[in-house]
Amino acid sequence: MSVTDELLANAQRYAAGFDKGDLPLPPAKGVAIVACMDARLNVYGLLGLSEGDAHVIRNAGGVITSDEIRSLAISQRLLGTKEIVLIHHTDCGMLTFTDDGFRAQVQADTGIKPEWAAEAFPDLEGDVLQSIERIKASPFVPDKSSVRGFVYDVKTGELNEATG
Amino acid sequence: MSVTDELLANAQRYAAGFDKGDLPLPPAKGVAIVACMDARLNVYGLLGLSEGDAHVIRNAGGVITSDEIRSLAISQRLLGTKEIVLIHHTDCGMLTFTDDGFRAQVQADTGIKPEWAAEAFPDLEGDVLQSIERIKASPFVPDKSSVRGFVYDVKTGELNEATG
Repeated sequence: MSVTDELLANAQRYAAGFDKGDLPLPPAKGVAIVACMDARLNVYGLLGLSEGDAHVIRNAGGVITSDEIRSLAISQRLLGTKEIVLIHHTDCGMLTFTDDGFRAQVQADTGIKPEWAAEAFPDLEGDVLQSIERIKASPFVPDKSSVRGFVYDVKTGELNEATG
Repeated sequence: MSVTDELLANAQRYAAGFDKGDLPLPPAKGVAIVACMDARLNVYGLLGLSEGDAHVIRNAGGVITSDEIRSLAISQRLLGTKEIVLIHHTDCGMLTFTDDGFRAQVQADTGIKPEWAAEAFPDLEGDVLQSIERIKASPFVPDKSSVRGFVYDVKTGELNEATG
């Protein structure tokens, strides 16, 4: 049995107990979260979210590239969210390599160098702050009145604001 | 009190009951999920995931752009995941507009046309299948042996495989 099949069996159990079929499309809390994809970061559990509450955007590092600007633009312009919360975390894989090293390794393995940066970073809090700046520098995200960034501690479960 | 402050209060409660401080960095189940950011789609709840199980990548639509290829390449190459699960969902905002219309509206509001496509789609299952093809066409995702795509039904809670 593949892991995917195991997850599908879990999904059948979720559907069997499902009672949230009438939630509206726009997020009830008017907030978009941008977080790292890390397996230990349970965004719903950590922030106490329920179905219907918030947009959740995730990628390697919780970084801001043009695709996160696309998602945030759609979230705010079409679905009415106003606040943005960024979450990086301790012990992140992005601290363990460099963009140059990653792209060179991919080129060595495949013969092709990725046209994108891997978005590795050496400093957690520093990258949260520059991610906030990337959002503030974008003309496509209309509401920048509440853009706050945090570092989640995978050892303690604590969420600490990046203050610079 | 802002929504962000309300979520931070929830995070304090999560930390107070936290007992998962020794989980390893690589996902235990060796799987990466790519899902829409939609607020009604609770990926952990739906798939029965716990902290440490799986990488979760999310964006507007659950689409595959270069940033999702970046995340999947890091997930597989550096953190050992092997299976990929894509999830779109019914009543998706991406069904309600067109790329041309969105980019024209942004240009009308800001004076600047985004350099990226909004990645809207008219057909849910069709976009799941072409998202799978984008992954299969990428030289940077090494393991394509299990790339499966699904449509989550926000009315019933059911997850149905896109079979074409």
